[in-house]
Amino acid sequence: MNTRTPNSDIITLLLQNSNSHELKHYKKGERIIEERAHARNVFLQKTGVVKIVKNYDRTDPIIVSFAFPDAIIGLPAVLLDKKYQVTAIAQEDTTGWMINAKKFMGYFDHNGIKKQIVKQMTEETLVLMERIGTMAQRSGLKRFLSVLIMLSEVYGTAEGKKLNLNLTIKDLSEIVMLSRETLHRIIRNIEDEGIISIKAKKITFLNFEKLSRMAQE
Amino acid sequence: MNTRTPNSDIITLLLQNSNSHELKHYKKGERIIEERAHARNVFLQKTGVVKIVKNYDRTDPIIVSFAFPDAIIGLPAVLLDKKYQVTAIAQEDTTGWMINAKKFMGYFDHNGIKKQIVKQMTEETLVLMERIGTMAQRSGLKRFLSVLIMLSEVYGTAEGKKLNLNLTIKDLSEIVMLSRETLHRIIRNIEDEGIISIKAKKITFLNFEKLSRMAQE
Repeated sequence: MNTRTPNSDIITLLLQNSNSHELKHYKKGERIIEERAHARNVFLQKTGVVKIVKNYDRTDPIIVSFAFPDAIIGLPAVLLDKKYQVTAIAQEDTTGWMINAKKFMGYFDHNGIKKQIVKQMTEETLVLMERIGTMAQRSGLKRFLSVLIMLSEVYGTAEGKKLNLNLTIKDLSEIVMLSRETLHRIIRNIEDEGIISIKAKKITFLNFEKLSRMAQE
Repeated sequence: MNTRTPNSDIITLLLQNSNSHELKHYKKGERIIEERAHARNVFLQKTGVVKIVKNYDRTDPIIVSFAFPDAIIGLPAVLLDKKYQVTAIAQEDTTGWMINAKKFMGYFDHNGIKKQIVKQMTEETLVLMERIGTMAQRSGLKRFLSVLIMLSEVYGTAEGKKLNLNLTIKDLSEIVMLSRETLHRIIRNIEDEGIISIKAKKITFLNFEKLSRMAQE
């Protein structure tokens, strides 16, 4: 659900060629880019965690993915000169650089940059496809199980280890598309089965084998 | 939901440099690539319509998008040397070339090709994001309305005109994630409202303004 492509080449290049890029700071909950605004910048993330949300401010918001340091946020909209399709919100305190779209496109033909962009876009496409696979599950339980598998794969955690991402029940309900009440009930059942435990916003994966078996049943 | 980037440069280049690429023919319903098989080829589509399906052969199959002439199918999996994430099935009789992944990657550094690939990947990302937006709608009616808007935008049709895509009720149910019974009922209501009419697998858009108003209510 994120892209971890190291964009340090891009950042180095952009910062070398400009002294106007001050590092921006966003507190948890602050919006970085807004859906339906014209894409005038890309955001190069330096630190923190960013949630990427579709339909924010509408009745059915959905958390599409999370972005981590080195992500380039807003890239597809800038490349095609369109409106942002998503809202990006600091999930944790986050820093990064806002790079003007025209300036960014000026570096686009630099061969190393284009290669990195292809890599990021490709990984993003794969993640979005997987995300669509999770959303297609019609049972709430199966949807939650497939989201858990995706979270563990994309954010890479081992059995017995915590997921490196703080998620509230509200966040989870906006990932799995379930009401908080339904989600609470499902989580209790999965915890009783010894598959995961959730404490202080952290998910610990306890039994991957049982998780994937239940997801396929 | 598709990518119409003209890939004629790629096709020209690939066909110039090889005499081993015979044009393949797929009859309606035949599978072109299979989800979870290792990505050994990209398919360069010459004619026809291809449906891109996730979770094919499983309980909750979903039609993610459609591909038209000039699409490169299987691209993200080949670029990252992974398994195909989707199944591609001829929606209409389809022709195209299967290009070996290694051979394809050999042309990848050709600058014009990389630019076209970035364009295709970017458009695909935007389409997948929009698709996620439609799927996030929890009410079946709203989901169907948002899918109609997406179909009309992506496949570009005018008011009073037919969508250039044959869709059965089964196809529609696998796009909108509704049972055929529920879908039938919703379609009857929307037809009664004078928004669309469906005849012989063709959707005609009759009132865009009312469609977008109802989708936002």
